[in-house]
Amino acid sequence: MRPVERAQLAMMLEVTAYPKPGNVDRCHDYPETRLEHFLASTIFARAALEEAESGKGRIGEIIGHAVRDTSCHAGGNTHFGAFILLVPLLYGRDIPGAISAVSRTDTSDAVAFYKAFALTSVKMNATDELDVNDPGAIAAIRDRDMTLLDIMQHSAANDMVAREWVTGFRLVRRGADLLQELGPGRQSIVDAFMTLLATEPDTFIIKKHGSEIARETMLRARDVLDGKLSIKQLDEDCIQRDINPGSIADIIIASIFIALGEGWSWDS
Amino acid sequence: MRPVERAQLAMMLEVTAYPKPGNVDRCHDYPETRLEHFLASTIFARAALEEAESGKGRIGEIIGHAVRDTSCHAGGNTHFGAFILLVPLLYGRDIPGAISAVSRTDTSDAVAFYKAFALTSVKMNATDELDVNDPGAIAAIRDRDMTLLDIMQHSAANDMVAREWVTGFRLVRRGADLLQELGPGRQSIVDAFMTLLATEPDTFIIKKHGSEIARETMLRARDVLDGKLSIKQLDEDCIQRDINPGSIADIIIASIFIALGEGWSWDS
Repeated sequence: MRPVERAQLAMMLEVTAYPKPGNVDRCHDYPETRLEHFLASTIFARAALEEAESGKGRIGEIIGHAVRDTSCHAGGNTHFGAFILLVPLLYGRDIPGAISAVSRTDTSDAVAFYKAFALTSVKMNATDELDVNDPGAIAAIRDRDMTLLDIMQHSAANDMVAREWVTGFRLVRRGADLLQELGPGRQSIVDAFMTLLATEPDTFIIKKHGSEIARETMLRARDVLDGKLSIKQLDEDCIQRDINPGSIADIIIASIFIALGEGWSWDS
Repeated sequence: MRPVERAQLAMMLEVTAYPKPGNVDRCHDYPETRLEHFLASTIFARAALEEAESGKGRIGEIIGHAVRDTSCHAGGNTHFGAFILLVPLLYGRDIPGAISAVSRTDTSDAVAFYKAFALTSVKMNATDELDVNDPGAIAAIRDRDMTLLDIMQHSAANDMVAREWVTGFRLVRRGADLLQELGPGRQSIVDAFMTLLATEPDTFIIKKHGSEIARETMLRARDVLDGKLSIKQLDEDCIQRDINPGSIADIIIASIFIALGEGWSWDS
């Protein structure tokens, strides 16, 4: 299997795995964003993921291409966070390679990334002075000579996907290890997702609902793991309250990509 | 959208549409063949579909490549019939182009096709003297100087996918027209599928269960359209009896491909 196919397979396997409390999955759509939008993005991302696989070009631009090419449907931003992880992982082939690749980003990557960011409706950090809607932000990046890794460092406190660039893809690694421990097949994806959900506050939830709700979701996921709450109940509650752990989903996609490359089997 | 993406999108949209009585869909797997297998094939078919999109090379070989590249999972043959339709449609760009492309097939296409066929577990025609498991079959094709179109002509009576090559993609056209009439969105895929199911005996059902069961399924689909039977009930009955209208699913994939190219919108 080519690395680009592994990345697409990871995107497909993550979104179809079910139930994943609060997120789009095989059993659940959001009114504006449906399973088909995620799967369409998996198809439309091919060219940009191939670009990343080639290990040539600039990472910031390639993320921009992935965002642009998957914005052609009405489902909004489906995989922005996933591309922030998959592009360097494809580019560098594995986690050590990705760490090296992100360390080589420069100001041009940061500028290209900010331009891609402006195409999405994501708020990376609501209190960020480098606001993506501020035309002055790109000038500020140039003035301060910030690399894309600097931008991620800047956002790491409030965004767990950005934090992966800074921590050497720690949670991606942990998710891949969980998949290997849990064994082959799609149920392991749900179980790895639940384990991360029970141990890490999802920063996408924090941005939307505040850290109290993120903490509460974490504790309730722990209750599911402890058999005190059914996963279906947590799913229904999250859906009703629009609590969707989108950043942990992004990390799980990258974890599946890594695990597949290390021999984990989805197909059993 | 590139034609190759349209073909992949058609494969994805067909399999996720639900409920589709008796077939794998968003709500239903078979024990050996699951939603993920169909979606993985959608990803793995990319290279062969790009080859078809290029309009170069031999159609029989390209179908062979699609079958080979999508046989890397445990879900068995998922899209053999769909490739028989999608490859000439991509190659020729539209139905008139596909008619012209299939008319230009030769013996080398027929041989390559038979080799691909041997990779699958499909029985194209149980009573066929050109049995795919018979090593003499390829020699016979060469002796008789049969083209791939001749092979399809030979199989047309018993296989509605092969018949499309001979009838100028009549049902593919009808399915695309139905989609346009029914309007945008995924529900139209289910409705177009049900309309074909109510009017055409599915030859995949005939091969597996005989023509009486295919006829009965057709009449029951008619009952669903007439509001006398719920689609869920028909779905449950078909699943229980292992009645899966796989050939109509293949035709609907090609119909979605054509309809998307003519402006039909999946995304609403």
